[in-house]
Amino acid sequence: MASHHPIMTKDDLTAFLDQEFPQMHAGGRTYFVDEIGPLSARMRMTCHERHLRPGGTISGPSMMGLADLALYAAILAHIGPVALAVTTSLTFNFLRKPEPRDLIAECRLLKLGKRLAVGEVSIRSEGSPDVVCHATGTYSIPDRR
Amino acid sequence: MASHHPIMTKDDLTAFLDQEFPQMHAGGRTYFVDEIGPLSARMRMTCHERHLRPGGTISGPSMMGLADLALYAAILAHIGPVALAVTTSLTFNFLRKPEPRDLIAECRLLKLGKRLAVGEVSIRSEGSPDVVCHATGTYSIPDRR
Amino acid sequence: MASHHPIMTKDDLTAFLDQEFPQMHAGGRTYFVDEIGPLSARMRMTCHERHLRPGGTISGPSMMGLADLALYAAILAHIGPVALAVTTSLTFNFLRKPEPRDLIAECRLLKLGKRLAVGEVSIRSEGSPDVVCHATGTYSIPDRR
Amino acid sequence: MASHHPIMTKDDLTAFLDQEFPQMHAGGRTYFVDEIGPLSARMRMTCHERHLRPGGTISGPSMMGLADLALYAAILAHIGPVALAVTTSLTFNFLRKPEPRDLIAECRLLKLGKRLAVGEVSIRSEGSPDVVCHATGTYSIPDRR
Repeated sequence: MASHHPIMTKDDLTAFLDQEFPQMHAGGRTYFVDEIGPLSARMRMTCHERHLRPGGTISGPSMMGLADLALYAAILAHIGPVALAVTTSLTFNFLRKPEPRDLIAECRLLKLGKRLAVGEVSIRSEGSPDVVCHATGTYSIPDRR
Repeated sequence: MASHHPIMTKDDLTAFLDQEFPQMHAGGRTYFVDEIGPLSARMRMTCHERHLRPGGTISGPSMMGLADLALYAAILAHIGPVALAVTTSLTFNFLRKPEPRDLIAECRLLKLGKRLAVGEVSIRSEGSPDVVCHATGTYSIPDRR
Repeated sequence: MASHHPIMTKDDLTAFLDQEFPQMHAGGRTYFVDEIGPLSARMRMTCHERHLRPGGTISGPSMMGLADLALYAAILAHIGPVALAVTTSLTFNFLRKPEPRDLIAECRLLKLGKRLAVGEVSIRSEGSPDVVCHATGTYSIPDRR
Repeated sequence: MASHHPIMTKDDLTAFLDQEFPQMHAGGRTYFVDEIGPLSARMRMTCHERHLRPGGTISGPSMMGLADLALYAAILAHIGPVALAVTTSLTFNFLRKPEPRDLIAECRLLKLGKRLAVGEVSIRSEGSPDVVCHATGTYSIPDRR
């Protein structure tokens, strides 16, 4: 069973993601691990033209990718660099139109089981208290020996 | 637009729910409003034989009903006694088997719009830090004049 | 890996549910397995006073319980009588107020994996083409040898 | 109230999407409206390097964007070109790893109300019967006069 304390640092995690998912930085780096804590992770997506929609808001798929990544980072930080953990479900509520600013995703793990991990993610514009998108998601964790 | 501070007290809300939904107490009162706060509500479901499943755990529908009720209570407390608010969606993650003890549902409203209200609910066994069931849900709010 | 054809008949399944979950018939039998097919199951919930809400509609928890049961029945029919399969997530969209008539839940399995089964359920009032409640859900399947 | 028959053709819809969301074709056109029908729409996403992940599978955000677009197309086809319809919630179940082939998203509207539209989307690799990703989603529809 996984520990409730992270076993990877922010730098470990950044290095692992860069190596395993280089394509997430295609067009310039916009995703950053901001902080890892007990059963939690905080990611940042910097504002970049490729995340924008007409009217100056941020696209749904960009926010959905950020939430998925924050959940993945939180799980990996606690179980170690297991590239094969896969998303099995994600639920999003879109609450407000985000302004064209950096987005901060805070993930809290609700369960870290042997086979499944479940967490929730709140995305806010930097400096704002309002949640613009809320997500819950589940990852399936491969058998380990 | 609704206020971010409750406009009904715990007693107002209890009286409204008792009058509008007497059937929720059929077989004996098990649902109680514990507390109302800014954009939040806490409900309790006392342990009763009709909520149990074999093996001494609490049934899924009982927990789902409790989460829905906590969300409804949180919304009503902020918009006033509008019996016609209706649930449009609910998503549940079942995380652990609850023991046969009182369950506490804490609801936090994420959005209180003119037409839609969205919140999340964490259900725990009384005295335990572990979330046994997590829910997010949306209510449609009728037009008011 | 499970077969895509059912290995339990409607009668097998009814007998298993009656034995393992007698409490679901407390107050009189209202849940019936109507049909089992390849990757599918159809359940019926007869209209009974305990499922009703004021105004003559059917309660949310009754519909949620019916959807969960239809998914469980569809899975068991294909993997055999494994009482330990547990719901891990459920998502509901409530589309219309159901009239006080029998409800029919049709479940279609989308995936029947070694560890997870996923399905969707459409609930309609008997004789009506309109979906009153739509659900998707996931069950975790215990290791088998 | 919206009709249950589409009022925009496939060509109308393509022209509207091209004009309102030109950025969805940044890097080369990969999204195509395949067919519009009663309460339904079918979209195609052609296989392109920018949708791929290491190992030759298709990225989650690409599939999530495709599902959202299929739902939007189905709704617009029935209510007319209302750019202001906005996604309020989306739930995804990821069922299988998609191969690097075209993906086909079939959307079926479950409800087309005055304020909310709800639909479900099944995504398959072209030519395969297996659903790789299933989605349900809700759009809020602006007031019309």
